[in-house]
Amino acid sequence: MKNVNNSKLRIIPLGGLEQIGMNITAFEFEDSIIVVDCGLSFPEDEMYGIDLVIPDITYLKDNIDKVKGFVITHGHEDHIGALPYVLREINVPVYATKLTIGIIENKLKEHNMMKTTKRKVVKFGQHINLGHFRVEFIKTNHSIADAAALAIYSPVGIIVHTGDFKVDYTPVFGDAIDLARFGELGKKGVLALMCDSTNAERPGFTMSERTVGRTLDNIFENHKNTRIIIATFASNVDRVQQIINSAYKYGRKVVIEGRSMVNIISIAMELGYIKIPDNTLIDIEQMKNYPPQQMVLITTGSQGESMAALSRMAANIHKKVTIMPGDTVIFSSHPIPGNEKAVSQVINELSRKGADVIFQDVHVSGHACQEDIKLIYSLVRPKFSIPVHGEYRHLKAQAQIAQSLGISKENIFLISSGDVLELSENTAQVVDHVHTGSILVDGLGVGDVGNIVLRDRQHLAEDGILIVVMTLEKYTNQLLAGPDIVSRGFVYVRESEDLMEEARMTVEESLHRCLSGKNQDWNRIKTVIKDALSDFVWKRTKRSPMILPIIMEVE
Amino acid sequence: MKNVNNSKLRIIPLGGLEQIGMNITAFEFEDSIIVVDCGLSFPEDEMYGIDLVIPDITYLKDNIDKVKGFVITHGHEDHIGALPYVLREINVPVYATKLTIGIIENKLKEHNMMKTTKRKVVKFGQHINLGHFRVEFIKTNHSIADAAALAIYSPVGIIVHTGDFKVDYTPVFGDAIDLARFGELGKKGVLALMCDSTNAERPGFTMSERTVGRTLDNIFENHKNTRIIIATFASNVDRVQQIINSAYKYGRKVVIEGRSMVNIISIAMELGYIKIPDNTLIDIEQMKNYPPQQMVLITTGSQGESMAALSRMAANIHKKVTIMPGDTVIFSSHPIPGNEKAVSQVINELSRKGADVIFQDVHVSGHACQEDIKLIYSLVRPKFSIPVHGEYRHLKAQAQIAQSLGISKENIFLISSGDVLELSENTAQVVDHVHTGSILVDGLGVGDVGNIVLRDRQHLAEDGILIVVMTLEKYTNQLLAGPDIVSRGFVYVRESEDLMEEARMTVEESLHRCLSGKNQDWNRIKTVIKDALSDFVWKRTKRSPMILPIIMEVE
Repeated sequence: MKNVNNSKLRIIPLGGLEQIGMNITAFEFEDSIIVVDCGLSFPEDEMYGIDLVIPDITYLKDNIDKVKGFVITHGHEDHIGALPYVLREINVPVYATKLTIGIIENKLKEHNMMKTTKRKVVKFGQHINLGHFRVEFIKTNHSIADAAALAIYSPVGIIVHTGDFKVDYTPVFGDAIDLARFGELGKKGVLALMCDSTNAERPGFTMSERTVGRTLDNIFENHKNTRIIIATFASNVDRVQQIINSAYKYGRKVVIEGRSMVNIISIAMELGYIKIPDNTLIDIEQMKNYPPQQMVLITTGSQGESMAALSRMAANIHKKVTIMPGDTVIFSSHPIPGNEKAVSQVINELSRKGADVIFQDVHVSGHACQEDIKLIYSLVRPKFSIPVHGEYRHLKAQAQIAQSLGISKENIFLISSGDVLELSENTAQVVDHVHTGSILVDGLGVGDVGNIVLRDRQHLAEDGILIVVMTLEKYTNQLLAGPDIVSRGFVYVRESEDLMEEARMTVEESLHRCLSGKNQDWNRIKTVIKDALSDFVWKRTKRSPMILPIIMEVE
Repeated sequence: MKNVNNSKLRIIPLGGLEQIGMNITAFEFEDSIIVVDCGLSFPEDEMYGIDLVIPDITYLKDNIDKVKGFVITHGHEDHIGALPYVLREINVPVYATKLTIGIIENKLKEHNMMKTTKRKVVKFGQHINLGHFRVEFIKTNHSIADAAALAIYSPVGIIVHTGDFKVDYTPVFGDAIDLARFGELGKKGVLALMCDSTNAERPGFTMSERTVGRTLDNIFENHKNTRIIIATFASNVDRVQQIINSAYKYGRKVVIEGRSMVNIISIAMELGYIKIPDNTLIDIEQMKNYPPQQMVLITTGSQGESMAALSRMAANIHKKVTIMPGDTVIFSSHPIPGNEKAVSQVINELSRKGADVIFQDVHVSGHACQEDIKLIYSLVRPKFSIPVHGEYRHLKAQAQIAQSLGISKENIFLISSGDVLELSENTAQVVDHVHTGSILVDGLGVGDVGNIVLRDRQHLAEDGILIVVMTLEKYTNQLLAGPDIVSRGFVYVRESEDLMEEARMTVEESLHRCLSGKNQDWNRIKTVIKDALSDFVWKRTKRSPMILPIIMEVE
């Protein structure tokens, strides 16, 4: 791994910067590219009808022969969710820890891609060679088990990528973060640190996951006579473990409900990441055999997602669980920004059904706060700081932390997706910008909904559509039928008959004016009709529905 | 005001319960109705294209002869915003304090309703007689000046309605809440307390508005060399006063920017609710004559509203203000639930332009927390508790506070909009439910967008529309033109030509099958086409666009 040609390392985030989600970063040296993570993001509010958003990987496709593999830090959707789509185009091996591979395999099965995809389980401390790179997996803590930081050994130096992490000295499962290894690397000399920025605005330290266990015990102790329903993130296996521990301690049976929860817990059980005492887990069908005060339901829906199990219970449309007065419902989560109203609505519905809803202080974050970030910087002592995983405000907050620790401003890089950051043994600078973007997934369609379609959906959503149809004789342009106006999403037609009739007359007039004139070009006719109708509608309603004139021709 | 007929008082919230916004409550006794507040609410996310939501006042219209007047507690939109719409149908006098009337008049001017509406300014301590009722205005504190609680004297007893309030012993303008009067009323005997629930989930006390002034001074002290831009709620006149105080103290000029901010501050200046030292306020055009470190801009946009001044500055589309590196931008506000993402986006854009953004701890709430609510209950000592102003979770939280103070569960009423709560001197019970609802305002249309139109907009937003047009000969049903398919918001047609052509062929086939069969009823033809196309599209894309077959007939 010597740098004989004096080549440079290029770090190219293809997503994940200045946004939460869609994490994917290419590391390139000569003929080798490795890709760290391959996540999706969830659609923004204005992306009507979109299911998922995945990164545009044109850059990788253009350099497909160089790509050696995907190295995945942990099993959250924003780090693995785009794999099934991206692997179809770039079929290289995927490297990750055991649980992460388990969760990826579950995804690959759904996409029928198990046979075509090479997966390699990597242990903490293990190194893998990928072209000019060597990658070491380092134990960290996070809100999902088996999260790894990466030490990426390149010919110009070591890059440490923390992945998403927190510092948990007393984790529920497995070891604490391998701080000593970060320290060893720091002593060796680290060229650049790419560190999680999610909580970089929050002062202090992130609490141990284990503190939630104590809170749960307290709640169980104080609610011995009611059924307990707990919603949390499906992938937070340690949280589920702690709920099960409390349930067992207080003599309750446990039902796991919600598709993603059932999926991940099954994988975690299979791979030994969760330990459930015998006769604790029961099927939802058996619930009726136990009194409420001997039951705990662990369910999805902690973010108020309308189709998740808890939301369906709250809305009284869950097939097997009905909320009863006296039920204790716990949100073991914080609302992710943007979900506050949905969560609040579920809390209201549950309260109205008589449930006692607990939604404060039954959660800790999975991301490092300011003092934890300082700890990592102090151990790793990087030459360059490259804050990752966050919106601009979070990256900037980390930059301020780095500066406070003595890293000079010129050595801190707030880069954007697509920026090419070129590093040598001593230097770093942004030298180029490659094409990046978001590909929208809607149903089976990947990329067939773009800006034009989205803009149309937004327009339709705001004001609806008026369709004007007419049939003209091909040669004479004589009006054979219409014009008729059909509307959707504009006004309730039955109660606006006058308005619609006047609109039709407006169109008819402008059409007759066109047809009696000389220029009978259809595009012109359409434009005239559109303008006339649009004016009329604006004057009468101060609205701008989409107007779509359609001319049929008959010979 | 004796109750000679043993009649009962009926309290009927027509909005505002189990929601934030659209506060309006009728108090009815024999032939008298008074209405407390007349607010709007802002549209929910799924109410595509809707500008405002106002209450359905059918009940008032059905009893129009009884209605004596509107009594308004304070000048926020959720308490006054529906007045221009409701007064058109129920033209009775409006009673409120001076600033509140000022803000209402501004609204009435916009709607050209000044001549037709009677307004009466009421002073604190003053009583007004309205049919069987007498209403006393009591000084409170809130995030807008001149907020009032109401003591409503009815023949069956006194109802105290707090309006929106906080307890501020050191208010910026005017007096502290008249706690003594609450106590006097308590000694007299209060039948029911209707108390603000907004912050009933929050422990402790709400801080004085004045504490924000100290924070502002600190920020001004620490940012002497940069321009300062502060966003806050337009109606928080006291906050603006404090910003101006700090500006004056630190030798800065002040620009007020944003339409609603300019409006309300003008009214407040005119009526003497804000004091601006001479030569402090300057026009935005004069800004160029002063160095940045001598400027403070007070602006709208603290909720990330896309069209507000600060958002336009952040997006670089404000005509007169460009964010410069080094600018200090302060959000003197908390995001209202639902606005978190929008606010965060503005923070990101400002940070990216090099601004130093301060968004924590430069705000205090205008609503009473748990201990303040306890204070009011302890002074008023009502027989019955009727929590108001909040979602169900908030009402329930107040109910728990009331219970903790010794009010028995049966005497606490968690009522819903439309419930008729009937009170005598000793009893209270919900006896009926009247029609209530939300009227959607879209442009000039009031109520012409209902559930059907909204459902169509949602459908169009999710998946777009496919329009199938064809021309048939009237008598023979011979196909003269088409079928053609036009789509909007479905797929980008230029890149999906095959799909669209196959869709057309699918329609053509099913149409020919129909036309060659016996049953050529047009509705049937439309249904067959719809089903065939819908099946095809679902199989190929897993999407369900709206499908709209249109048949034109030619004789």
